Amino acid sequence: MLQDYQLLRIPGPTPIPPSVQQAMMKPMTGHREQDTKDLLKRVQPRLKKVFGTDEDVVIIAGSGTSGLEAAVVNTVAAGDEVLVIVTGSFGERFTEICKAYHLHVHTLHYEWGKALIPEEVASVLAANPSIKAVFATYCETSTGVINPIEELAATIKQSSEALVIIDGVSCVGAVETKLDEWGIDICVTGSQKALMLPPGLCFIAASKKAWNIIETNQQPRFYLDLRKYHHTSLEFSTPFTPALSLLYGLEQSLSLLELEGLSQVYRRHQMMKQMTRAAFKSLGIPLLTTDMFASPTVTAIIPDGDEPDALRKVLKQDFGIVLAGGQNKLKGKIFRIGHMGYCTPADILQIISCIEIGLFKIGTIQETGFGVMAAQQAYLQGESI
Amino acid sequence: MLQDYQLLRIPGPTPIPPSVQQAMMKPMTGHREQDTKDLLKRVQPRLKKVFGTDEDVVIIAGSGTSGLEAAVVNTVAAGDEVLVIVTGSFGERFTEICKAYHLHVHTLHYEWGKALIPEEVASVLAANPSIKAVFATYCETSTGVINPIEELAATIKQSSEALVIIDGVSCVGAVETKLDEWGIDICVTGSQKALMLPPGLCFIAASKKAWNIIETNQQPRFYLDLRKYHHTSLEFSTPFTPALSLLYGLEQSLSLLELEGLSQVYRRHQMMKQMTRAAFKSLGIPLLTTDMFASPTVTAIIPDGDEPDALRKVLKQDFGIVLAGGQNKLKGKIFRIGHMGYCTPADILQIISCIEIGLFKIGTIQETGFGVMAAQQAYLQGESI
Repeated sequence: MLQDYQLLRIPGPTPIPPSVQQAMMKPMTGHREQDTKDLLKRVQPRLKKVFGTDEDVVIIAGSGTSGLEAAVVNTVAAGDEVLVIVTGSFGERFTEICKAYHLHVHTLHYEWGKALIPEEVASVLAANPSIKAVFATYCETSTGVINPIEELAATIKQSSEALVIIDGVSCVGAVETKLDEWGIDICVTGSQKALMLPPGLCFIAASKKAWNIIETNQQPRFYLDLRKYHHTSLEFSTPFTPALSLLYGLEQSLSLLELEGLSQVYRRHQMMKQMTRAAFKSLGIPLLTTDMFASPTVTAIIPDGDEPDALRKVLKQDFGIVLAGGQNKLKGKIFRIGHMGYCTPADILQIISCIEIGLFKIGTIQETGFGVMAAQQAYLQGESI
Repeated sequence: MLQDYQLLRIPGPTPIPPSVQQAMMKPMTGHREQDTKDLLKRVQPRLKKVFGTDEDVVIIAGSGTSGLEAAVVNTVAAGDEVLVIVTGSFGERFTEICKAYHLHVHTLHYEWGKALIPEEVASVLAANPSIKAVFATYCETSTGVINPIEELAATIKQSSEALVIIDGVSCVGAVETKLDEWGIDICVTGSQKALMLPPGLCFIAASKKAWNIIETNQQPRFYLDLRKYHHTSLEFSTPFTPALSLLYGLEQSLSLLELEGLSQVYRRHQMMKQMTRAAFKSLGIPLLTTDMFASPTVTAIIPDGDEPDALRKVLKQDFGIVLAGGQNKLKGKIFRIGHMGYCTPADILQIISCIEIGLFKIGTIQETGFGVMAAQQAYLQGESI
């Protein structure tokens, strides 16, 4: 096979656009020099639009998990009651972080592949009025579910003062996100998903209410102390040396989002979801989630038995295509297609065509072409809406 | 002036070699795919040599400070007695981190520009036998002091069980570092200094004794829990999404260090230090540190009055050269030249020549050329040794 040829279709890291790669090639500058301040001054307000907020968004050098932990250690302290809604692997991660800090953790578990139900969250809150924060996942990467966080926030706000804290890592920048309008208090995302950058940055948006709580929260923390990031961001600086090459890239990735227009970015992701789902439906291969709660950024598919791993192997060998498998309790049972960031309907047609060949080779389907045909129809119909 | 022309001579971030830039352009790969495991398998053992250890070295996505904090939260817990040796700004940072975690902090302060004295550390330990860990800075970036950490470790080990924990951020990879031989328990460094990478990675080496303590330490932590990094590193993996582009670059920067040979890398840095110091001595402009404790990676110079900032301004305007100023109590009083990583004796001759012109323009010196002449002589003498 052609050496070095690879099509990365996992739900993050996602491919890097050439112009973002180019931007990251800029030589290092002093992180306390005017150049870096100017860069942060240009970037900070533009990040707010991605989160749908007028409040400040801060940038940490770290994996997405460092952002999830920051959301915990800055808002609550040992012994505080919290509720974690678990719809998959990343809900579990929030639980682990909360337990590591000796919080009093309530959990609300949903079957993997199902979305959370806001009314059930309200019941838990009604029964446990001391809960100070509710942690939920916007797109659960492990299952391809997009949780109804707008409804969740509205429901919580009706009856509770609890902070609404959202892991938006695998979808913010690809799906509509309106923190201020929806009443979300904290939302975290990472660089390596819809924002089309390598991993290594995370972004944290917080409401006025959350920033106030962060200011006075007693939990010990230092590197992840959001007060430090917030205070320095007001002067277009950072408390610690920022990951400069990724910041250079960020400016260009934000330009790409703005040139396309965020609403068109969201439509493109919806389109890719619909095309992907139409293809597998036409092939008679089950999808893990319902249409209603299917994420525009990642789709989980459930072929029979050993097929997921056999299929991924063929796609890698024949086409250099990398798909994701299942995590934890879904290991070996599903495969996942990431369709976010630097990915278009043309890429979906390609990936479906190749997957059909893979499915044919492992004996799951006897003819190829009907999946891609369905995806094409979804494209033409979607465009005409 | 030629647009985009810049010579970055601050003590980090340092310039990125073209081949490292090129390596970081590699397209993203799945962080759980074989490619990434293979990369970590190649890189991990090579990192050990930089630290002079046979024990495991782990990689975190974060600024250097995240590594300093990891060194704290993994070894001690609230209420524990620790000693922080403060020889400048980064000693202060260790103190702040320890205080944030409610440790019982003893400090031993030295005048900025002076090195620590191991016997005085021993006295503090003798008077406070409950001290569990001693924190010190190898190269104090803010002053250009290289502390005698080999002697420090030897002295501590004679009479105490305290862990010896070293911030090596601005020198590991540029100066001899032999953790195992010297008895250092933990050493931290960052990517953006001698390792010739953008900021965003930190590296933590630990002794067997330290790894044992890390395993059982009760301080709550999650993202910076070194156990997670250690356990996954044994399988050539990471607990959270690694900063992939920086890892691609790391492999190449390690190759550059190996091709030159670590001992020659150390000699090159010694040479650059000697050239720089010879130049300012010949110009009659004071240096902040003594020869004995001068760092091979950064030199702090003390011209009169307002000269440091005036000089930096001229160098930026005329030549695109970026020098560092003083930090905290040395703000406005010194300037600092970073000479580490992708920097050679030829660069020192250039920077000295340009600084002479700057000093001439601001009226500090009346003739130019004697500084560079002294640096040339230092080069020729150094080479003949």
